[in-house]
Parts: sequence; C-alpha cells; structure tokens
Amino acid sequence: MISVEEASKIVNERLFQPKIEKVGLDNVLGRICAQDISADRDFPPFNRVAMDGICIQFEDFENGQRQFKIVGTQPAGAKAMENQSGCAIEIMTGAMLATHADSVIRYEDMSIDNGIATVKIEDVRQSQNVHNQGSDRKKGDVLIFNNTKITATEIGVLATVGKEKVPVYKNPKIAIISTGDELVDVHVTPLPFQIRKSNVHSLKALLNQHGIQPELVHLADDKSQIKNKIESLLTEKDAILISGAVSKGKFDFLPEVLASLGVVKHFHKVEQRPGKPFWFGSAQGTQVFAFPGNPVSTFVCAKRFFEPWLKKSLHQQSAQLHAILGEDVSFRPALTFFLQVTVENVNGTLVAKPVTGNGSGDLANMTIANAFMEFPSDMQNFSSGEVHPIWMF
Amino acid sequence: MISVEEASKIVNERLFQPKIEKVGLDNVLGRICAQDISADRDFPPFNRVAMDGICIQFEDFENGQRQFKIVGTQPAGAKAMENQSGCAIEIMTGAMLATHADSVIRYEDMSIDNGIATVKIEDVRQSQNVHNQGSDRKKGDVLIFNNTKITATEIGVLATVGKEKVPVYKNPKIAIISTGDELVDVHVTPLPFQIRKSNVHSLKALLNQHGIQPELVHLADDKSQIKNKIESLLTEKDAILISGAVSKGKFDFLPEVLASLGVVKHFHKVEQRPGKPFWFGSAQGTQVFAFPGNPVSTFVCAKRFFEPWLKKSLHQQSAQLHAILGEDVSFRPALTFFLQVTVENVNGTLVAKPVTGNGSGDLANMTIANAFMEFPSDMQNFSSGEVHPIWMF
Repeated sequence: MISVEEASKIVNERLFQPKIEKVGLDNVLGRICAQDISADRDFPPFNRVAMDGICIQFEDFENGQRQFKIVGTQPAGAKAMENQSGCAIEIMTGAMLATHADSVIRYEDMSIDNGIATVKIEDVRQSQNVHNQGSDRKKGDVLIFNNTKITATEIGVLATVGKEKVPVYKNPKIAIISTGDELVDVHVTPLPFQIRKSNVHSLKALLNQHGIQPELVHLADDKSQIKNKIESLLTEKDAILISGAVSKGKFDFLPEVLASLGVVKHFHKVEQRPGKPFWFGSAQGTQVFAFPGNPVSTFVCAKRFFEPWLKKSLHQQSAQLHAILGEDVSFRPALTFFLQVTVENVNGTLVAKPVTGNGSGDLANMTIANAFMEFPSDMQNFSSGEVHPIWMF
Repeated sequence: MISVEEASKIVNERLFQPKIEKVGLDNVLGRICAQDISADRDFPPFNRVAMDGICIQFEDFENGQRQFKIVGTQPAGAKAMENQSGCAIEIMTGAMLATHADSVIRYEDMSIDNGIATVKIEDVRQSQNVHNQGSDRKKGDVLIFNNTKITATEIGVLATVGKEKVPVYKNPKIAIISTGDELVDVHVTPLPFQIRKSNVHSLKALLNQHGIQPELVHLADDKSQIKNKIESLLTEKDAILISGAVSKGKFDFLPEVLASLGVVKHFHKVEQRPGKPFWFGSAQGTQVFAFPGNPVSTFVCAKRFFEPWLKKSLHQQSAQLHAILGEDVSFRPALTFFLQVTVENVNGTLVAKPVTGNGSGDLANMTIANAFMEFPSDMQNFSSGEVHPIWMF
C-alpha cells in the first residue's frame, strides 16, 4: 500500500503526450488551446466610433465653434469619409472615424436643423466617444496564451482574429471496461441476483464533460476473453479505465491478466477510504486505471487520480480547490479519507457539509453530495472551520 | 431607464414554459431532470457480498466454531446457493449472499486447506462485509428529485434504475442575430473598416454550454430585410438574441421594426455599465433580448439577464454566487457596475481581483477575467473585504 500523495505522483509522472489537432471554431468550447493566439490587426483595427452622433475636429470646438454644417452621413462598414475643417459628418457606432475628425458628439448632446448641428454641451473632450485604433491591443500581441481553456469569451476572440480552425490538444483515446457477471445492461430487467451497470456510465459522463467519447466494453468473468480484449485495447487506446475485478476474489483475474500482457504494475492499493483496491499500471504508452467495483470507490479514484492526470496531460492548468469544513468530523483509520460533502457558497466562502451515507456502495447518496473533501491520513479529528482540499463532482 | 433589479424581475416574469421530452441516457448530461426518479428495487436489491471470502452463519461462529467445510463457490451474477449449518461457501464481491449465511469473512482473515476454511480472527460481527438489501434505499424511494441537474453521479443512478430514456425539460429554440454592415464572417479577411463577427460566436458558445444549438442569422442594415427575417423567426423560436442595432444610430432600425411586428417593448435601457442600451420585449410567447453591439456589453447582458432566464425557464435551481472583493474599487455614476474580475479560491474563500481594461469594447480583456462582480448603483466606493454577487463566465 502506498499513500495517496505517492500514488498521485506516480500517476502524474506518466502523462499522455497529446498531439495537436485543428478543430473548427464551432467545436472547441472546453478544449485547451495549443498555441498562442495573436492579434492579426490592432484592437480596434481603426479609430472606431463608439456612439451615434456627429464627428468633428476638436480644434474647431476648442476655438469656440458650436454649429457645424453636416457634409455627409457615414454608416458602419464603409470607407472613412473626408470631413472638412469646420464641418461635421453624421456617423454611426461601429463606423471608422472620418478623416479630419477626432471626436464624436452624441445625438443626445446636440440638435440638428436644416443640416446644421448645434452642440448643446460645453464639456467636450478630444477623442471623446472614439475607441482609438490599437488602444486595447496591438497587432501581434498575444490575446490567448497557449494552454488556455477555451470558454465563451475565448470563442469571441478566436472569431475576431479569424481562427476558423483552432489548434487544440488532441484528446486521448480511452476505453472504459466493466467487469463482473452480475452486471446487465441498462435496458435489461435484472434477475434477483443481478444489477445494472452504472459505473461505466458515470465514468463515460465524466469523460463527456471533457469532450471525450470513450469506447465502452463489457467483459465477462472469463480469463481468456478478458486477456484477448485487453490485448487489443492496449494497441488502440491511450488509457484504459476498468471498473471492478481488482480485489481478491476467485474471478478477479485482472492483475494476473494485465501482468501476462506486459502491463507493468506501478501500485495496487492506496491508503485511502473509499477506493483502497485501486490498481495502476502501464504498457507501451497506455495507462491502465483499474478501479474498485463499488460506485463511490470508483468515483473517488476517478476524481482524485484519473481526472487530474487527464487535465495535466492536456496542459489544462487548474488550481486545487479548497473549502471550509462546516461540521466536526472524525475518522479513525490511518487512511486518507474522502468524505462526501455538499459545498455551498456562503457569502463568498465555500462551506462543506458532510453527507452521511452507507459507505462505498451508496451511489444514491452521491446525487446529494457535490464534492469529496479530502482529509489527511495522519489525523483522526477534524474541526468545523478547518480548510481542506475538495474535489467537485 | 429602469434599474437592474426591475429589469431582471420583468425578464424573469416571462419565462419559457418547457415541454418534457425523453432523451437517451447517453445525451442527458447537463440537462434538467423533469420527473422524480424512484428506485425500481431496493438498494442494494439483495444482500450483497462486499468482500471476497467465505460466508457463514454468525451463530456457528458465536458458538465457538472456527473451522468450516467449504461446500461450494458462488460467483457474482448467479443464484444464491444454499449453505448448510456449520458449513461455508466461498463467495465473491457483488454476489448475492448464500441462504443460511449472514456474515462474510475475508480471505485475509482465514486460511483454506483441503476444502476446510480456518478463521484466524476473533473479532467477527454478525452481517459483517454484507451490504444488506434495502440498507441504502427502499424500492419506491425517490433517488433523483424533479428539477435536478444531471451530472455524472445522476447518470450512474439513472443507469442503475434502468432509465434508458430520461424525461428532461425541452430546450427553447433560439436564434442569435448579428446586425451591422461592418461585420464579416470569421473566414473573411476584413477590409480596413470592417471587423469579424464575434458576439454571435460567444453567445452561441454560452448556449452550447447548456446543450442548446442556436440558429445564427446575420442581417444587413436594411429595414425590410430585418423585418422579414425577424417576422419569420418570431413564429419559429422561443427566444431571439440580437447583438447590436439598439442604439440611436440612423441605421438602428430595430426598435421600430420590432414594434411594427407587434413585439411589445418591456424596457429599453437599464441603469448599468456596461450594457445600458439593453432592449427587451416579447410577442406571442417569443422573448426578444436585444443586446448592445459591444462585446463586453453583450456578454454582461447575456450573463445577467438571459442566462438566469434560461436556467429559471428550465427549472434549474442555482443559488446566487458571491465573492469577496480583493481590492478597493470606485465607480462614480449612479449605475449598477459590472466589473471584470478574476475569482480565485484562496483557502476556501473566493477572492475577486479587478481586471483593468478599456471598457465595453475590450473583448480581449475578458479572456483574463473569469467573472463579473456586480456593484449596486447607490454607492460609489467599494472596499476590499466586502462581499458582492458574481457572475462566473
């Protein structure tokens, strides 16, 4: 048995090395940008009118002029017109500022009669209501740094700079294997001694959240079938997640089968509850995460070891979250303890309240909790107000 | 002009009333469950063996017996075997407990020689290592309540109870309209006075995060084209989001066109910065959100008014998040102020640090921020340590 920290270190030393692929802008939400994205032009690309009104030379206003002959109308999306000294051009938000003009006066601040605009305010500043070329960013400035997660705001920037196709890190190919002859498919009515598969669906959903479509595989408790299938998956996949079949049972062939296929075991069993029987190994660049069969155990291992491995592999930077324990908790065994909690934002502070359940088999409880809180193995009593790491579902 | 609070109230009084649809389990991640989901059987559905080993009658152990003849081996996924008084059955994790047995002794706690198991420990309790039928939930208990957002853990429960198809609230049909002759498509190299569309792509990404695929429409600054297209969209869509064309410009026909199509204006202009020119109206069950054209203004309005409307419409319960201001901030105008901030989890507390930018046109800045913090209109100075609402991107 090794500690959670050692296990985590071993897993994270064996990251997947993603290639880079170009994906259409419509499909990169949530992906990780694999290249610095620079401004192809200044931001804004021209002196951009920010209010509807007229544009003038500020010098004329400064010299006391308050009435301006309107010599034209300039919409957005057209070439800059030429203003004349002492005159004005009606101009619209989004338009390129007319030449020989540097300031915009809003419709609200003037009146127009017979083609003459009369300015009604005295407080006019040079360049007002103009968003000057390059004032936000210069051509060539990096707008989105390599390894940034693409959200709705990055999508807007990528569109602005014309990235129809965006370089992102390619997701690993992943298989999720369920084992155990007691398991039947979701559409089947189970016999009294059977249950429906659930772990593989939870794990699949977790991968879907990262934009990954895994292959689902079920293996009966049959040594040669398990061996043949895993042998072929090892050649195809970057990671294999297995639920069940790593305990001590007569039909838990998995560690033996994996060894016979040249999968090197890095560890089996971690000093934690739940999830102690977690097994991790690798062969030829494929990482094998073999989780215990119980739903909560599997989910703890997936959130604590697999998901950080996935994020780190894809260069996704994410800081460890913490919350404040809202009730006293005791846990005797010398194991890292993952407690199901509900984390709530109370006036800007994240407060974690324990959800009491029946241990590693109690899947239904996890729909009430929204995180695991992690307690160190070398303490037994944890007090309300202490800060501990959390793993949000 | 109305306040942010009034505007929010008006928008949220005009919710979309979703129908219920049944969607395959593979595609319900992130959707809102539209029905209580009950246990179709007890949880667990049988006395489930939780460790690999032998099962015995506790009474025999209590009476001093330490050696048990093994009369069979029971794997998971098979009918319960019949144990005999004084005997034991080798039994595997996930199996249905054999009849005439009530406790399981792990392989680690015994030895087996010549078909006889010898128990090596004295601390054996009745029902140990057995997860008793119905101990987590009883048949008929509600496992997932109506209006719950479906995450990976709910997916596991839905699979367990055999929900191949899940009743969820049907998403609204939405169009996103860009306006403005200065806008060109992402793949086009803009002329000096043109810019590429970006707002519609950010808005689309925001909808994609909710599993909604909107229709994107571009309208030139042409009154009859705008009128015809919006007329047909009003018959097809539940909501229309429009970016631009609601200010005072000569080519901002939109309020006039909407009025001529019978769209009732509820308000135009909200006491806020950025996003003041926000226009909201409705006709025959279609809500029209007309956002200002500037990227940051549009995003503020989308996060503050549209997204809460969408969530409430779909019965998604989400509490208002708050964070603690990390620096002093001043804002003079009597407007609700939305400041771009980076929210970080510092020892369980969410701390918001201002991101300084160039106002409502500065899209690139928003890739640094990860939230807006909302400051009330009736104050001007805000101090580090104060708690204010946040809207995470």
